[in-house]
Amino acid sequence: MSDKMKVVLAYSGGLDTSVILKWLGDNYDCEVVTFTADLGQGEEVEPARAKALAFGIKPENIFIDDLREEFVRDFVFPMFRANTIYEGEYLLGTSIARPLIAKRQIEIANLTGATAVSHGATGKGNDQVRFELGYYALRPDIKVIAPWREWDLNSREKLLKYAEDAGIAIESKHRGGGAPYSMDANLLHISFEGRHLEDPKNEAEEDMWRWSVSPENAPDMPEFLDLEFQAGDLIGINGVHMKPHELLARLNELGGKHGIGRLDLVENRFVGMKSRGCYETPGGTILLKAHRGIESITLDRETAHLKDDLMPRYASLIYNGFWWSPERKALQTLIDYTQTNVSGFVRVKLYKGSVSVVARDSVHTLFDQNIASFDEDGGAYNQADAAGFIKLNALRMRIAENARIKRGG
Amino acid sequence: MSDKMKVVLAYSGGLDTSVILKWLGDNYDCEVVTFTADLGQGEEVEPARAKALAFGIKPENIFIDDLREEFVRDFVFPMFRANTIYEGEYLLGTSIARPLIAKRQIEIANLTGATAVSHGATGKGNDQVRFELGYYALRPDIKVIAPWREWDLNSREKLLKYAEDAGIAIESKHRGGGAPYSMDANLLHISFEGRHLEDPKNEAEEDMWRWSVSPENAPDMPEFLDLEFQAGDLIGINGVHMKPHELLARLNELGGKHGIGRLDLVENRFVGMKSRGCYETPGGTILLKAHRGIESITLDRETAHLKDDLMPRYASLIYNGFWWSPERKALQTLIDYTQTNVSGFVRVKLYKGSVSVVARDSVHTLFDQNIASFDEDGGAYNQADAAGFIKLNALRMRIAENARIKRGG
Amino acid sequence: MSDKMKVVLAYSGGLDTSVILKWLGDNYDCEVVTFTADLGQGEEVEPARAKALAFGIKPENIFIDDLREEFVRDFVFPMFRANTIYEGEYLLGTSIARPLIAKRQIEIANLTGATAVSHGATGKGNDQVRFELGYYALRPDIKVIAPWREWDLNSREKLLKYAEDAGIAIESKHRGGGAPYSMDANLLHISFEGRHLEDPKNEAEEDMWRWSVSPENAPDMPEFLDLEFQAGDLIGINGVHMKPHELLARLNELGGKHGIGRLDLVENRFVGMKSRGCYETPGGTILLKAHRGIESITLDRETAHLKDDLMPRYASLIYNGFWWSPERKALQTLIDYTQTNVSGFVRVKLYKGSVSVVARDSVHTLFDQNIASFDEDGGAYNQADAAGFIKLNALRMRIAENARIKRGG
Amino acid sequence: MSDKMKVVLAYSGGLDTSVILKWLGDNYDCEVVTFTADLGQGEEVEPARAKALAFGIKPENIFIDDLREEFVRDFVFPMFRANTIYEGEYLLGTSIARPLIAKRQIEIANLTGATAVSHGATGKGNDQVRFELGYYALRPDIKVIAPWREWDLNSREKLLKYAEDAGIAIESKHRGGGAPYSMDANLLHISFEGRHLEDPKNEAEEDMWRWSVSPENAPDMPEFLDLEFQAGDLIGINGVHMKPHELLARLNELGGKHGIGRLDLVENRFVGMKSRGCYETPGGTILLKAHRGIESITLDRETAHLKDDLMPRYASLIYNGFWWSPERKALQTLIDYTQTNVSGFVRVKLYKGSVSVVARDSVHTLFDQNIASFDEDGGAYNQADAAGFIKLNALRMRIAENARIKRGG
Repeated sequence: MSDKMKVVLAYSGGLDTSVILKWLGDNYDCEVVTFTADLGQGEEVEPARAKALAFGIKPENIFIDDLREEFVRDFVFPMFRANTIYEGEYLLGTSIARPLIAKRQIEIANLTGATAVSHGATGKGNDQVRFELGYYALRPDIKVIAPWREWDLNSREKLLKYAEDAGIAIESKHRGGGAPYSMDANLLHISFEGRHLEDPKNEAEEDMWRWSVSPENAPDMPEFLDLEFQAGDLIGINGVHMKPHELLARLNELGGKHGIGRLDLVENRFVGMKSRGCYETPGGTILLKAHRGIESITLDRETAHLKDDLMPRYASLIYNGFWWSPERKALQTLIDYTQTNVSGFVRVKLYKGSVSVVARDSVHTLFDQNIASFDEDGGAYNQADAAGFIKLNALRMRIAENARIKRGG
Repeated sequence: MSDKMKVVLAYSGGLDTSVILKWLGDNYDCEVVTFTADLGQGEEVEPARAKALAFGIKPENIFIDDLREEFVRDFVFPMFRANTIYEGEYLLGTSIARPLIAKRQIEIANLTGATAVSHGATGKGNDQVRFELGYYALRPDIKVIAPWREWDLNSREKLLKYAEDAGIAIESKHRGGGAPYSMDANLLHISFEGRHLEDPKNEAEEDMWRWSVSPENAPDMPEFLDLEFQAGDLIGINGVHMKPHELLARLNELGGKHGIGRLDLVENRFVGMKSRGCYETPGGTILLKAHRGIESITLDRETAHLKDDLMPRYASLIYNGFWWSPERKALQTLIDYTQTNVSGFVRVKLYKGSVSVVARDSVHTLFDQNIASFDEDGGAYNQADAAGFIKLNALRMRIAENARIKRGG
Repeated sequence: MSDKMKVVLAYSGGLDTSVILKWLGDNYDCEVVTFTADLGQGEEVEPARAKALAFGIKPENIFIDDLREEFVRDFVFPMFRANTIYEGEYLLGTSIARPLIAKRQIEIANLTGATAVSHGATGKGNDQVRFELGYYALRPDIKVIAPWREWDLNSREKLLKYAEDAGIAIESKHRGGGAPYSMDANLLHISFEGRHLEDPKNEAEEDMWRWSVSPENAPDMPEFLDLEFQAGDLIGINGVHMKPHELLARLNELGGKHGIGRLDLVENRFVGMKSRGCYETPGGTILLKAHRGIESITLDRETAHLKDDLMPRYASLIYNGFWWSPERKALQTLIDYTQTNVSGFVRVKLYKGSVSVVARDSVHTLFDQNIASFDEDGGAYNQADAAGFIKLNALRMRIAENARIKRGG
Repeated sequence: MSDKMKVVLAYSGGLDTSVILKWLGDNYDCEVVTFTADLGQGEEVEPARAKALAFGIKPENIFIDDLREEFVRDFVFPMFRANTIYEGEYLLGTSIARPLIAKRQIEIANLTGATAVSHGATGKGNDQVRFELGYYALRPDIKVIAPWREWDLNSREKLLKYAEDAGIAIESKHRGGGAPYSMDANLLHISFEGRHLEDPKNEAEEDMWRWSVSPENAPDMPEFLDLEFQAGDLIGINGVHMKPHELLARLNELGGKHGIGRLDLVENRFVGMKSRGCYETPGGTILLKAHRGIESITLDRETAHLKDDLMPRYASLIYNGFWWSPERKALQTLIDYTQTNVSGFVRVKLYKGSVSVVARDSVHTLFDQNIASFDEDGGAYNQADAAGFIKLNALRMRIAENARIKRGG
């Protein structure tokens, strides 16, 4: 082992992390280990190897991992069991990927004897928090290098200048027309921030979107899907069973084709500011709707309400980067427990940007047609019971009003 | 005043409440006062007067009230300030009308010296609870007559037979083809239950829907609306200020035209069973989305999260019929307090069944473009602060992991 | 098996349930199975056998079970893991025993082929709910006979008259001086209701209390106990390991000796009324305090806060009788998960009616003396981190105030 | 106005803030304004004037304010309306004083044209957060100087050396025997941290306590108090009406005399560590118990439960320093709304360290003796109603169990 400090960098191969790769060497007397993950972002990860080699990274210090299966199975699906939405709208596509990257980075640090990690998230955003809370939780003595909080490359121009000086290839999208959108993609979503989105009264431009056609350009015929769930997780589409990440990829295709899952919102960051983001989450949007659909017939009312009450808290934990915290794990234990019987089928309709549940069925159904019926139910339900039920539910209000009247109130 | 018991009946003029009108006279030695409300259900209310007269109701005992303004101003809008949704989906269109009907029924009882009230809700549903909790809360000594829980007309056939024997006109929709849908309508929505919806795996038939075209038949061009909010309430559409109920009526037209607001779900009733309902809430669907939009730039993060955490509870209170309860009022006080600065403009796009927010603006905005910017911010935000922020947020997890390691865990 | 309906009666052997035993025979053509449980109420249970035999109950229909171990291990201890208190005060001594009685009654029904169960709880209280929710949850087709809701023995006099006529022995406490307190006892507590307690402005009489000396009469010297916990449960007192119910019995002795655990309160019943109760919970009062003590050094902050946030809901579920509900079980899963490391020692001081924690220690401690110290900590904590932590926590409030100033607000 | 930066220092006149006073002059080219508040800490505040003058502070820059009335009326009492306790134990005596000090410091900054504020809280504790969140919320552009986070006087020895060199008088308590307890006092409590308390398995020494006799030394006769409440606030003791701060002072005397309000705990700080503190809160302990007592008869069940559910969140907000946040204000709005009828009398017994409620009475009582009675109630409550109430509450569990049986589960 070298006696230089080793640093594991989350390296995408793009401009920003390439600048960081160079900057780490320039500013720290360190040996860099690069880690590039395939999370289904839709870009090749292998090119990162050549780039890293070109920067002089030793071959044994280059890690390129396909994490798609683990990502969807152990992170995305558990989160969807809770019907998780942040601030009523956001499906947490970026947030849910960070804990896995942090975990793998620490694993690689442990494998390679590295004592530091580094990432390319800025000092204004949530991702720095999500990465670093993960690092610290999993390896409390780790040293974190966050270049964006240290360097003076605090404008697009300075960054490009540094890249140019360093001989880093700059793709045309980074030139002219100002900075590109800040984007993040994985199997769950692609996000857009920055540029003219920075003013929330500007509408997003149609050509910004990548994964979905516009609803206007979606097929004129709706498409119906039969989704199969087991213990809260999707296991099949139209009768075909696949692995979690294959299912999500398939839903993305189908959703994108029908213009589903676009979102434009202003959200509240953990670091204290509001920011505007646009998101495409085609598969996730379908999955959330369908999961609520299967829960609607298989989950007890009070259990469902308990989940609904806890969901915003669980969502904030993930959004804020506390995936590895004990309280997130405690909530997960509860959520997973509730999913035992959340199994069955949901039929959804995709059409021009919207997804709706049209039917659901399960052997675990708690829907009792006999009891619910408007017709004679053969005594399954005694309507007279409702009188007492209402009377006692009203009692405290009646006592209070009687007391008020007695006081002459 | 007669010395007969007087009963105020919530009378729609339809078949069921006409049967009740007759049945009350047959079974109770009472004088019936009818009350018919215009809540924007889209049917004439005046015909109820002639029908009541035909049943022998005294003219001074017939009350027909236009409650549309009060309904939207004092019930619908306060509820929307909380972004209220029951079980992740349902906009509470039926639930929110019941407390107003109950209140007016009690007012009429007080005016006419009535000591009893009656309604046409069945013993299996939520509406009986909502009506009666209202009655008891507002007048604790009231006698409640709920015919559906008392009589033996517990099938469609028996009811029709009773109507026929009583000479009550039966519209054709009630004959053949089994029972019609059980429907409820007001300015916020129209609902459908019963018939083949009773099996949640049956899809709803296209010809069931009344207020909205199918998304497939909606215009091929999207439509954009500028919605103006003040203190959490909608006050204008495309620059035109109107009264709350006029605004909602206009949104219903626009939403219905674009196929917006259809919903098909299985919900959990307060009385303990699951039931399947279909709903059309065109205006409400737009309003909810837009209200979240204006809140997204004018509401503080933690205030918004507090509201989100409390919303499911507030929604359950309304769904379960506790509008007049002290805890609903306490929550309303908090919700209303948060809306002081929820003012400004939201631009929404309506297209083929979906509504999306595309822009928002407010003089009360808490969005600070300078701080949020990816560009240089002139020192508005010090990125280095984030390091300490993260370190202390991570501290408890680091201590725990260190302790675990020390234990050799 | 007889073809008469069999009814399993929760039979204490006391006056009320003896009257019920007689009344069931008089009013139902049934065969009664009696069930008497030792829950540590401090009265012999065997005499119930002779009484039952005297009423003509067949020997094989008499069940007398010692449930003390199961009661404390599977009901009391799990509840204390949550630091459960109802309405800020009440330790749920009665509530937690009912689900076990209901469960055992249903087991006996299943064993004996009974189709009905019966209990001696009145129609005004919570216990009827707790019993019957248990019955229905565990055996949905069970028939429930609740004599207090059916008969006309709705006054003390009528009940005594009925007993006298039936030749039931009436203890002197039931005669003269009006009705006795309504009491309930088990290993966790003894409760008192009724008589002059029915007016909340009357003070409880000293001679009412049974299990504890008055603080004034407690020893003048404090006593210290070392309590050992494992995974959230008490396992030892002063170095002696015992079974759960033995531990609780020992704590009751010690607490009672020092006048600990008396409580006088007005509580809100599930059926809608307020009621006044007095309770003695000597051991439970010590246990709650000590459990919080061990948690204070072994439980993560946010996990502890999550538990505190959920506790009132969990307490209401138990108070209201929903022990066997899926939502109670889901919460229990979370609670139990958090207790993994809640192990160690707590030293408490008992003196004249109060219990206080004076020291605590654990190998699982999360208390880091170095970090917490006012002295130099060798860099374990960097005080400068706090500046950034505060700055970002303040950011949203600064932005809001700046916006207000800019508006000239 | 001088063109030097002006700094408003929260100055107690004690050693630490005297060192800071000197250090500010040594390290910043600034003019110091001192602010000393009487919050009922039990020490003279006037001596701070002479000390400040001796440091060369201009007379017009010395502010000494009696804030006792405002403190109890506008901070302590509103907090007690919520029955606020942090982590099940702590009455927030220190936390609740900080927002007022911060507010007054900013007011003085505005009066004197100061642009900076300073305080003597360390970088490890909660108080720095509470002060500074207040500063920033009330004046977002304020500069904060927190010497403990900046200087290198990070041990007791260095601090004393600096003081000695500066000619600052050092009281004997600061010499020998190591550092004194870190104490904080105001009308609500006195707190102790540090020294041998830093190990949670060490018991507190008897001679540490200041405000209360030990329970062992308290009078052998109990004392009873009649406490009068109006709209949630204490207004009288034994028939004597006083101002809020006079009432609290009186309760402190009475409680202290009877050994009430001592607390020894390990708490979780906002900055991420656990710390051990001891507290004496004699009056507050009585007040909390009595407030719950008056609420028990005047507050509706669900309103009380809503408050209980929200309390831990409200407590954390105050503990963490968010008094001036919009979410604390929103919660306060709800809490205050619920207190309208929380008026009446509570009788408490003080004896040997414990306080208990023995009686309560109110014209606003919701306790209905007739309904609660075990005796005949003349039809006020129909016991048969309970059957329906229970049946419908059980329905979802029965359906679930039936479904399980049908599946052969």
